[in-house]
Amino acid sequence: MAWFRRIIHVSSSSFGSSINQRNLNPSSPFLFTCLSSFSTQSIVQTSSSNDYRHSGLRPTKPGEKPRVLVLGSGWAGCRLMKDIDTSIYDVVCVSPRNHMVFTPLLASTCVGTLEFRSVAEPIGRIQPAISREPGSFFFLANCKGLDTDNHEVHCETVMDEENSLKPWDFKISYDKLVIASGAEASTFGINGVKENAIFLREVHHAQEIRRKLLLNLMLSDVPGLSVEEKSRLLHCVVIGGGPTGVEFSGELSDFIIRDVHERYSHVKDYIHVTLIEANEILSSFDDRLRKYASKQLTKSGVRLVRGIVKDVQPEKVILNDGTEVPYGLLVWSTGVGPSTFIKTLQLAKSPGGRIGVDEWLRVPSVQDVFAIGDCCGFLESTGKPVLPALAQVAERQGKYLGSLLNRIGKAGGGYANTAMDMELGAPFVYKHLGSMATVGRYKALVDLRQSKEAKGLSLTGFVSWFIWRSAYLTRVVSWRNRFYVAVNWATTFVFGRDINRI
Amino acid sequence: MAWFRRIIHVSSSSFGSSINQRNLNPSSPFLFTCLSSFSTQSIVQTSSSNDYRHSGLRPTKPGEKPRVLVLGSGWAGCRLMKDIDTSIYDVVCVSPRNHMVFTPLLASTCVGTLEFRSVAEPIGRIQPAISREPGSFFFLANCKGLDTDNHEVHCETVMDEENSLKPWDFKISYDKLVIASGAEASTFGINGVKENAIFLREVHHAQEIRRKLLLNLMLSDVPGLSVEEKSRLLHCVVIGGGPTGVEFSGELSDFIIRDVHERYSHVKDYIHVTLIEANEILSSFDDRLRKYASKQLTKSGVRLVRGIVKDVQPEKVILNDGTEVPYGLLVWSTGVGPSTFIKTLQLAKSPGGRIGVDEWLRVPSVQDVFAIGDCCGFLESTGKPVLPALAQVAERQGKYLGSLLNRIGKAGGGYANTAMDMELGAPFVYKHLGSMATVGRYKALVDLRQSKEAKGLSLTGFVSWFIWRSAYLTRVVSWRNRFYVAVNWATTFVFGRDINRI
Repeated sequence: MAWFRRIIHVSSSSFGSSINQRNLNPSSPFLFTCLSSFSTQSIVQTSSSNDYRHSGLRPTKPGEKPRVLVLGSGWAGCRLMKDIDTSIYDVVCVSPRNHMVFTPLLASTCVGTLEFRSVAEPIGRIQPAISREPGSFFFLANCKGLDTDNHEVHCETVMDEENSLKPWDFKISYDKLVIASGAEASTFGINGVKENAIFLREVHHAQEIRRKLLLNLMLSDVPGLSVEEKSRLLHCVVIGGGPTGVEFSGELSDFIIRDVHERYSHVKDYIHVTLIEANEILSSFDDRLRKYASKQLTKSGVRLVRGIVKDVQPEKVILNDGTEVPYGLLVWSTGVGPSTFIKTLQLAKSPGGRIGVDEWLRVPSVQDVFAIGDCCGFLESTGKPVLPALAQVAERQGKYLGSLLNRIGKAGGGYANTAMDMELGAPFVYKHLGSMATVGRYKALVDLRQSKEAKGLSLTGFVSWFIWRSAYLTRVVSWRNRFYVAVNWATTFVFGRDINRI
Repeated sequence: MAWFRRIIHVSSSSFGSSINQRNLNPSSPFLFTCLSSFSTQSIVQTSSSNDYRHSGLRPTKPGEKPRVLVLGSGWAGCRLMKDIDTSIYDVVCVSPRNHMVFTPLLASTCVGTLEFRSVAEPIGRIQPAISREPGSFFFLANCKGLDTDNHEVHCETVMDEENSLKPWDFKISYDKLVIASGAEASTFGINGVKENAIFLREVHHAQEIRRKLLLNLMLSDVPGLSVEEKSRLLHCVVIGGGPTGVEFSGELSDFIIRDVHERYSHVKDYIHVTLIEANEILSSFDDRLRKYASKQLTKSGVRLVRGIVKDVQPEKVILNDGTEVPYGLLVWSTGVGPSTFIKTLQLAKSPGGRIGVDEWLRVPSVQDVFAIGDCCGFLESTGKPVLPALAQVAERQGKYLGSLLNRIGKAGGGYANTAMDMELGAPFVYKHLGSMATVGRYKALVDLRQSKEAKGLSLTGFVSWFIWRSAYLTRVVSWRNRFYVAVNWATTFVFGRDINRI
């Protein structure tokens, strides 16, 4: 703390008036507390700081709470962290982002219907112990590897590109490990997708889409562009007709009808949305709902094209039959597949390459390791199908495993290698509650059938749009975000969408 | 539009079910309209597109409205655009950002008290004619040079670094030119400021500060850092004790007391704020207010240091006396000076290097050119002092010039070279309404004296904090943003600040 004492010295020797007197006076309560606390910590912690480097969190000792390590902060990991009993466990979360994204509302933020902060929930609010308990932590890092024999995980910090610090490695010992690191957007090995298309899975993707869309709207108004260039700049192409692609297309066409026509009237005739899908849009939905969605999208100006993408270039997409589709904005939402991290793990896999789990969501070959959410699938030996990569599956698995771990902890099996012969109770069973998707202004689909083949209630139109909004409002995690989403919706209704490009 | 017709071909030949039928049917009203409007435009406009390139907006013709060209979208330019009579003039605005920043509230957005969108007002909302009238435009561009003899301005488009388009040049002819392009942050030629410090003048600066602050808070919690490194990462250094530096320090210390202690309790003892100022903080304020501000800041944990910065390195600031001040976040707010663009202009300058104007805010050597805001100053020949670079000066000048231009236009002098001998009426006179600054939680200063030497009312504490908030709420431009600021303040009060790092 030499530099700090030098500052104090400078300030006390050269500062005038009341500030000077304050700093000169060693009996000043503020200064005294501040200096003394600095030096105490310095002595205690400097001596141990060399041990910390390349070290991390050691195995828990008797008297400490057992440590649950959660990799990831999506629907599965966050629901688990919310439910975990922090009087039994310490919780450590490792994730490259400090918040959970409320993914079903992400498409709305791309066009300013909702603000970005309204769809992000800080992990520290989902599980306050993480910021308060001495043994619970959130680490902004990626997991690089597992050492299941030693109950240890290897991590590397995440930081911005421009940083004077270099990323560093550290290890965390766990008593229970929950892998909830999710999946990655599928590109099917198509050339140019990662370089030119924007995914729609994180808040920064939505920010990028919004910045690009507004930039293209403004650039196309500047003198010096040909009609071809204007049309290309304002051609928004969405690849993938699942719920994300359909909702984004609907939001975009609504933005065009309601806001672009009023706020960018010089270029309103140049902007178009094309949705390209290899098969049928919303293939998991009821046939009647699919037809309704196609009709609504077409009516609001979205061009539906059936095609398979072969190549993605900086200004155009090439389809399998040779058609070239110029674009100014390309959004890619063709579903997800196993992430690179999951692929590298030497664990048994489920069909489709996810981490294989048994009916209690355990990774059977190793002790104290569980997997939930999009990164896991039932092992073939369970006889159960791999569940779809849906928020509701992940959330239900997080809830199940949270209560299972609480039960294990209460029964004294919280520490590493202590729950081997424990009775785990009922296995995880997934019951589909139905699917929802919006297709633009006051229109949505609600499919309450439990599977694609089953009969059941399906709704369209305003009533289901109302259900869609209400369901999301009640599912948004905190009251703060519920309030913000409601305020965003109300102001968008009254004042129109936000068109600031910031 | 060959590619578009090919898409339609693909979709009609291969799309199934109802979509297919819709697209196949040439009598479909949507498709027909869409295709026909595309081809018509293509023919009409392609033929003229070559003329557009490297061209721009030509001089206005008889029968068209005269064109006011505004360079910049700050307080001065936006107030002028708001007041200009669009039944007389077409308005064209050239600026590198599509919104006005409500600068006095910018410091609050760095720590999540206010959301970024709440302090930004899109230009299209300030002057709706810009997005609706056929002769009014907003161009996302920088001005590169003036040709006052030909009443012409040279511009270059602004875009993101990663863009397949290259920036291009275009020209705009004007009848009246208003230079309101503002000033640049002063670095006093100190090495390393631009590379390592963050200014606090635009929304993207505030975003950068917030991202860095939250990153440093999280990184300092990760195992592997020594106490020295932690203390450096969490040392927030503010250079410059003007209202911006003081308000930011106050907000930051309030964020630390109220939010960091609760949400980042593991590292709360490592975070500190140091404000370095070469002279006195808030030098334009009343002596009593200055003392009050120093006392409040010190009380809330801000270290006030008197020093002159000599060099800025990636992890430390070097003061003139050799003291080294390590930092994790460095915010630079030492006032403003003439921008590079203003320096390159071959126009008479005021003391301090701003564009010299007469008492009617005209640039006297040339026809139909005016300058307002931080980029202009009274010529020495007027016998008036250069006004301070304050929002209220800029806003008052914008208001004055707006009504002057309206009067000129009504009297038939709107076109180029037609107002030479016109009687302009009363010159611009600035009357200072007082200064305000907040110093953290529920504390503010209000200085209602008209100049530094004058006697008058000055207030401190909760009452003036209340005045500060109320004054800002009524000055925030639109009802939408007033509403948003109020909502942000209320939710911050109830739920604490937003700590999402997105």
